Amino acid sequence: MNEIDPIEQGQPAQPWSVERVGVVGMGLIGGSIALDLSQQGLVVQGLTHREVTAQRARSRGLAQNVSTDPSCLQDCDLVVLAQPLKSLLAPEQNLLQALPLQAVVTDVGSVKVEVLKVWRNLHPRFVASHPMAGTAGAGVNAGVTGLFRGRPWVTTPDSETDPSALEVIRQLAGRLGSHWLTADAARHDQAVALISHLPVIVSAALLRAVGEERDPAVLDLARALASSGFADTSRVGAGNPALGAAMASHNTQAVLRALASYRWSLEQLEEAILEGHWAQLEEELERTNRIRPEFLSN
Amino acid sequence: MNEIDPIEQGQPAQPWSVERVGVVGMGLIGGSIALDLSQQGLVVQGLTHREVTAQRARSRGLAQNVSTDPSCLQDCDLVVLAQPLKSLLAPEQNLLQALPLQAVVTDVGSVKVEVLKVWRNLHPRFVASHPMAGTAGAGVNAGVTGLFRGRPWVTTPDSETDPSALEVIRQLAGRLGSHWLTADAARHDQAVALISHLPVIVSAALLRAVGEERDPAVLDLARALASSGFADTSRVGAGNPALGAAMASHNTQAVLRALASYRWSLEQLEEAILEGHWAQLEEELERTNRIRPEFLSN
Repeated sequence: MNEIDPIEQGQPAQPWSVERVGVVGMGLIGGSIALDLSQQGLVVQGLTHREVTAQRARSRGLAQNVSTDPSCLQDCDLVVLAQPLKSLLAPEQNLLQALPLQAVVTDVGSVKVEVLKVWRNLHPRFVASHPMAGTAGAGVNAGVTGLFRGRPWVTTPDSETDPSALEVIRQLAGRLGSHWLTADAARHDQAVALISHLPVIVSAALLRAVGEERDPAVLDLARALASSGFADTSRVGAGNPALGAAMASHNTQAVLRALASYRWSLEQLEEAILEGHWAQLEEELERTNRIRPEFLSN
Repeated sequence: MNEIDPIEQGQPAQPWSVERVGVVGMGLIGGSIALDLSQQGLVVQGLTHREVTAQRARSRGLAQNVSTDPSCLQDCDLVVLAQPLKSLLAPEQNLLQALPLQAVVTDVGSVKVEVLKVWRNLHPRFVASHPMAGTAGAGVNAGVTGLFRGRPWVTTPDSETDPSALEVIRQLAGRLGSHWLTADAARHDQAVALISHLPVIVSAALLRAVGEERDPAVLDLARALASSGFADTSRVGAGNPALGAAMASHNTQAVLRALASYRWSLEQLEEAILEGHWAQLEEELERTNRIRPEFLSN
């Protein structure tokens, strides 16, 4: 990470050169960005794939204007690509042609190496972003106000990133109340593999193992006795399957690296149990007990 | 599991032969049992190891009488052993001598095979119990009213269990508002290994793996970005270290069996990622998405 530099809320805002913001995709992230910026008096132009989504976005008041025609982006100073990762990584030609050359363009994808690989050459003022925020919701009905308040907004600039474009995104993050961070893209992807993608696989494997139990009486009893510990540990393993697979497929090397480290850690604990080294196991659990607060103080 | 047989709340209570209940250990479970039964007008006699704990239990009003002398149990019709598992599995001679022969004796331990192995020969009216309830608290200050309401109360009777003693424990569970279940002890231990002990190891291994990250920039970023998914998946892995080690040491075979199944499940998911079989990974995640509600409907 190059710096952790939360925007100081007390500081007077720098002049904001953006008047018209395009938001591509009106799902949880796009819809929430559109809502907050609309309420701040900016002109927000939404773009959706389907007319039925556009209608719903209009009726929810996510943006002043919502269209299905990419040319609606023509006068935007800033365009936020809030599409699913798959569409982001294989952008349609008519979208690319509609992006104004002078506009600042950013995305909201949760992996950054592949996004930069694709977008670095597609637009001169592209800035790779990952606002870390979410709810259980998805789709055009999911967007809410204040989603990004107090949450990290990571960008992964490199030597080719336009500094003035980066400054616009920094201001955008500030307007949404986010904590601004910049990081190296590969390190970002490794960090999210560890704290976001690995937990999905670890948690899914727990559900899979329990589902593999072949004694129906044990299975019935497990169903009757499962409580908050099981609920918490299994939650992210039962999340959106397409999203889980997309994370792994677009962050494969970092996820495999995290899994190798996880497998090694699991083997150490299993070996302590197998050998009956209870004092060692307790020491390991004292260590994990100390580690967790380091990751959850933010 | 032999039966799942929740006590029907509307049914008139059967005559309850118990007037005086001894509770050994005034921690979360013992204190909560004592509180509920005291409020129902039963005479509750608490027994603690240390006088300072007895004083605190008295001042909290957990029981009418709290002593450090095991002979206080002499007139009890029912004794609940709510000590830590380690003490339960190596009971002191003066406690054993103080247990009235005609009293019903039960425990609250979260493993049942080892408990039965020890207690089957120590008292003729012993019934092995596992009330599944808890909070984050522990110790003499942790007991609360209503802790067992709506929660499972498992007993693991075998051919040697006194049926009239079992009926007393069934009534006890009913008075505390629990759902009554009976199960084979080995199957109980396998079920809790899957849904309670395995999640601790799985979750601890996640914290351990993240703690092993050697790139300080990745580690800092992971700390800054960890959010609810990581918080949930890592929660039970950062629980009470002594309790985690005790679970593994007193349920070793079932935990190792659960870990073997888990390792296999993890390998299947890892292989799908390694081979780039994204459709298969998505199918796996659809399956885990379907499995979870089966375990959390109770």
